[in-house]
Amino acid sequence: MPLEALQQPERAAAVAADAFALMRELFPLVRSITGNGVRRTLDGVEAWIPLTRHEVPSGTPAFDWEVPQEWNVREAHITEVATGRRLVDLRAHSLHLVSYSTPLRARLSRAELEPHLHSLPDQPDAIPYRTSYYRETWGFCLSQRQRDALAACGEGPFDVVIDSTLAPGHLTYAECRVPGETEDEAVVYTHVCHPGLANDNLTGIAAAAALARELRAGPKPRLSWRFVFAPGTIGALTWLARHEAELPRIRAGLVIGLLGDAGALTYKRSRRGNALPDRAAELIVPAAGGRLVDFEPYGYDERQFCSPGFDLPFGRLTRSPNAAYPEYHSSADDLDFVRPEALAGSLQCLAALVDAIDANQPWRNLSPKGEPRLGKRGLYGLTGGAGPGQFEHALLWLLNQSDGRHDLIHIAARSKLPLPLLARAARALHEAGLLAPADAPPSMQPEEEGTSP
Amino acid sequence: MPLEALQQPERAAAVAADAFALMRELFPLVRSITGNGVRRTLDGVEAWIPLTRHEVPSGTPAFDWEVPQEWNVREAHITEVATGRRLVDLRAHSLHLVSYSTPLRARLSRAELEPHLHSLPDQPDAIPYRTSYYRETWGFCLSQRQRDALAACGEGPFDVVIDSTLAPGHLTYAECRVPGETEDEAVVYTHVCHPGLANDNLTGIAAAAALARELRAGPKPRLSWRFVFAPGTIGALTWLARHEAELPRIRAGLVIGLLGDAGALTYKRSRRGNALPDRAAELIVPAAGGRLVDFEPYGYDERQFCSPGFDLPFGRLTRSPNAAYPEYHSSADDLDFVRPEALAGSLQCLAALVDAIDANQPWRNLSPKGEPRLGKRGLYGLTGGAGPGQFEHALLWLLNQSDGRHDLIHIAARSKLPLPLLARAARALHEAGLLAPADAPPSMQPEEEGTSP
Amino acid sequence: MPLEALQQPERAAAVAADAFALMRELFPLVRSITGNGVRRTLDGVEAWIPLTRHEVPSGTPAFDWEVPQEWNVREAHITEVATGRRLVDLRAHSLHLVSYSTPLRARLSRAELEPHLHSLPDQPDAIPYRTSYYRETWGFCLSQRQRDALAACGEGPFDVVIDSTLAPGHLTYAECRVPGETEDEAVVYTHVCHPGLANDNLTGIAAAAALARELRAGPKPRLSWRFVFAPGTIGALTWLARHEAELPRIRAGLVIGLLGDAGALTYKRSRRGNALPDRAAELIVPAAGGRLVDFEPYGYDERQFCSPGFDLPFGRLTRSPNAAYPEYHSSADDLDFVRPEALAGSLQCLAALVDAIDANQPWRNLSPKGEPRLGKRGLYGLTGGAGPGQFEHALLWLLNQSDGRHDLIHIAARSKLPLPLLARAARALHEAGLLAPADAPPSMQPEEEGTSP
Repeated sequence: MPLEALQQPERAAAVAADAFALMRELFPLVRSITGNGVRRTLDGVEAWIPLTRHEVPSGTPAFDWEVPQEWNVREAHITEVATGRRLVDLRAHSLHLVSYSTPLRARLSRAELEPHLHSLPDQPDAIPYRTSYYRETWGFCLSQRQRDALAACGEGPFDVVIDSTLAPGHLTYAECRVPGETEDEAVVYTHVCHPGLANDNLTGIAAAAALARELRAGPKPRLSWRFVFAPGTIGALTWLARHEAELPRIRAGLVIGLLGDAGALTYKRSRRGNALPDRAAELIVPAAGGRLVDFEPYGYDERQFCSPGFDLPFGRLTRSPNAAYPEYHSSADDLDFVRPEALAGSLQCLAALVDAIDANQPWRNLSPKGEPRLGKRGLYGLTGGAGPGQFEHALLWLLNQSDGRHDLIHIAARSKLPLPLLARAARALHEAGLLAPADAPPSMQPEEEGTSP
Repeated sequence: MPLEALQQPERAAAVAADAFALMRELFPLVRSITGNGVRRTLDGVEAWIPLTRHEVPSGTPAFDWEVPQEWNVREAHITEVATGRRLVDLRAHSLHLVSYSTPLRARLSRAELEPHLHSLPDQPDAIPYRTSYYRETWGFCLSQRQRDALAACGEGPFDVVIDSTLAPGHLTYAECRVPGETEDEAVVYTHVCHPGLANDNLTGIAAAAALARELRAGPKPRLSWRFVFAPGTIGALTWLARHEAELPRIRAGLVIGLLGDAGALTYKRSRRGNALPDRAAELIVPAAGGRLVDFEPYGYDERQFCSPGFDLPFGRLTRSPNAAYPEYHSSADDLDFVRPEALAGSLQCLAALVDAIDANQPWRNLSPKGEPRLGKRGLYGLTGGAGPGQFEHALLWLLNQSDGRHDLIHIAARSKLPLPLLARAARALHEAGLLAPADAPPSMQPEEEGTSP
Repeated sequence: MPLEALQQPERAAAVAADAFALMRELFPLVRSITGNGVRRTLDGVEAWIPLTRHEVPSGTPAFDWEVPQEWNVREAHITEVATGRRLVDLRAHSLHLVSYSTPLRARLSRAELEPHLHSLPDQPDAIPYRTSYYRETWGFCLSQRQRDALAACGEGPFDVVIDSTLAPGHLTYAECRVPGETEDEAVVYTHVCHPGLANDNLTGIAAAAALARELRAGPKPRLSWRFVFAPGTIGALTWLARHEAELPRIRAGLVIGLLGDAGALTYKRSRRGNALPDRAAELIVPAAGGRLVDFEPYGYDERQFCSPGFDLPFGRLTRSPNAAYPEYHSSADDLDFVRPEALAGSLQCLAALVDAIDANQPWRNLSPKGEPRLGKRGLYGLTGGAGPGQFEHALLWLLNQSDGRHDLIHIAARSKLPLPLLARAARALHEAGLLAPADAPPSMQPEEEGTSP
């Protein structure tokens, strides 16, 4: 199995350490849904894996949406005029500016400034993360302590500078494709639009890059794997719109992110509830100490992939889900918040998921009437009476269930045998001429998990 | 939702008080499966709501049955000849005479009388309820204490008078139809044949009348609602026979009765087990402190609606089920046995069931590829990053699930959001042009819940 | 029901005593997958029931296999040359020789002998059971104590004699067919190839013989029952190959064996998981203190019947499953290991399973619209108001569920009424013209219990 090494703790720990170095490098960049912050983030990823970049012009339609203007910012700060003190400065933290803030250079009273300030009174040291992609306005995010200091300046005035541009340009996303033995595809998708948040989502970016790097280095996978780095929502919609013809080839997708906090692993099922990645997760995530939760239409880009017009087999892996930890969407989600051993555990689990999805070949027993004679093919102990071992059990399960309707994940769940053992036994039976690859029959194609009558 | 007011405790308590007044008025009438007791009961109901009356001639076939002769009684009593003491008198309690007793005017010894007496030795003060619709005989029901007193008279003789008529006539039933926006129908059915029992079934009669009165007063429902007041068994069979052509329009039915005792609410599933009223009850009854039980072919008129030749989507709501309380089918089931607060709670639950069944519109997302932009339609907060509220969650759930295969009850169950909130959000999305009413697809039509292989 | 008597403890105890006598007679025979040991075993069975014998020539193909050469043995022993002491002798125990050992007459050193010896160091008094059907070799099985005694002889030499023949001949199996009212069939299958093991499988042989004897003596069953006595694996494969055209007639099959140990009854589901015998067992086995386990492709001949090319509705009844007790496949599985009361309990349970499978007629309600009038047909109490008894409940359940899609086992499970009561009520309704036998519709035909998507 292509990622068998990464399933082991030692390799996962080493790769997690690499991932941390990448995250540290990418942390200061001012990312948004468009602009140079995304491009420089992709430059960092490209040091690990080759990327195909896509630049999609502003105004390009994407279903009910369209690609917005491109936003970039050089500097942004608030200065007390009386003292020349710089009270808030984007250089200090990339969260200080509301994303997509319009350009501004003005002297304002505190009363004029106040409606444009965002803070978290309950978390006085944390800077919140706020955006205004679709309403042209501006704003600053600051800690409650900074806001109190600003209030102590009385009515001001304050010099407010936002040296940004909001103009026709492009939305940027990138893919790394690892070709497999078949044209069937699997997708790992992660969002690249968040500035200054480490768990959300430098962990996702680094994990996707690591998986792609390891997959390229190992034996050729069965499926062709596509790793997508794109902004949230509009990026996913744009990707869906531009790749709509390719969607029928997708057998499984994983949206990943938030992979480094101390919470247990959380797999969120696809809208279908029993799609291929859901079934792989059922086998793997609880054994890794994690849990599965049902689909809901709030979260990350699984919302778009699982909208009813697509209903793609996409699940999501995080540790704590979005909005489920106090540091979420604030400056408290920094590099110290991410735990290397948690990230390593996430990589191990992701490697097992990728391997299970990739190995999930359905087979057909070519000698289905009675058991074939395994002994004469060197596959079974020759003295009778003492009972078979685990490998022999795997052979028997594969032969019994391989009627073209049961895939390896089904057999692993039913037999309680490890999937890698079953994959090995399937190869042995294939070489002995007893199993042939089966086309997935209609009943194994995507279908709804149950409709209400 | 048409009965939203009745779902509230205050309105339910007021309506329950009205219902009590109606029950008190109807209590003394000598009801049976035919005759003037039924007609006068319907007169009482008609003071609240307009009724369409049906008089079906004796001998009219109804599947394996036919409408029996009409039975009426003026007086019935047993008198000790020696003393002139009237020992049992129908005027004292309408349960004293076995229903459908044949006329009699005779002087009998106690030995001749005894086989015609019915009492409950274990409940010495209670008069039992007995009928003999299909075997021509006569009998008296009396408390064990009365029977002991009669025995104390020695061998009698006794003058026995039953001034009844059993002759060609009619079976009487009535309907109140509340027209809705569509021709699809829902039915509330209650039996009107029991004399002198308050919980069984003056509560059902009064509750049906109250629901119809409130529904007529409120906003027009989506379904056309039909309230049927008819005798048990032969009434239901006659109604089925005369309305067979209309049955395919019925989306849901509720048999109601026994709504005022102190027991918890009990919803009995339809034969199908997952029909529309069953799914509505799943959502509503446990939240109202009640429970659901599976269908069994013993009970009230759900027996006929759920016979295999019809298999209609009819469930039943009672508090304690039939035969599940000691006062059942005896004079102990009197007006004091019924608790106003229990009846009010039943009305609240019924109102929620009616509203859920009525609102259960399936919708279709007209912008199903990705999420539509709710912000530009004024349906979503405009600053990003801080997460949506409950109304926004309802919008997302509706858009995600409205593929024409999931109705509101399904979405309410899956999202755990209140059905009224979802109904409100669906209207908002409809007005924004994002949802359109969907025809119920084949998979939402009546179907069997699971056949044995 | 044909085996109603055997369901009772007294009759079951008497039959178990008979079975013990048969087992004692058959114990010493040297059985294998071919040869005279099997023939003499069948002679013993034939004292109870008539058998149709089949002799299938060596070399006859059976799917991926072929009938092997026939093996017989007259004597086999190991003698210490120095003392003339006979250290191991087949006459002492039929397990001493590895089944299918090739002929040998040689003087060997202990070093030469050792690789051909099998013992159980952890169970020093037990002789293991070993076979070598498909690799031409020879061997002796002995207790660890015997092996230690042999080692104490130093390097020997030893005279080793195996007076066996391995030559073209026949595989022997036999059937007893009890004709029923229909051509639909049920099969009870037991393996006859094990030498010197009492629970595995003289209990199965004696139980099958007893069931057939009792079934022949009672009222004619509905299904035609076939009792098959054949060697394991190759016997089942040969039987399948020779009777392939008859397989579509089989409604249910039971592989039986290991019926006398102290363990609880264990029913192993068919591969389908919800086939007719599985559903009968669900009703009967837990009530008999036993348990059901899921199918797995290791065990006895259910492996062959449930291979994917056949996927027949065969379950298996044992007490402890194969390999689940320490005495398994060793001389500790002797006649003392088998408990008469355990065997009697197994017979009771088997009788109930046979009766349930046999009675599982689907019926069709001929008066399906509403309930038919049971009173006028003498099937129901005539005075109303007091509620029905258990027989009346059975009538109502049968009428309600008999739409041709629900069989008696389904109705018994759903109503929680005893199957024999339902069978009696069904006959009464049939005689009253209210139920007619229904053909099993497509949905009641064999089908898979659930495929993976």
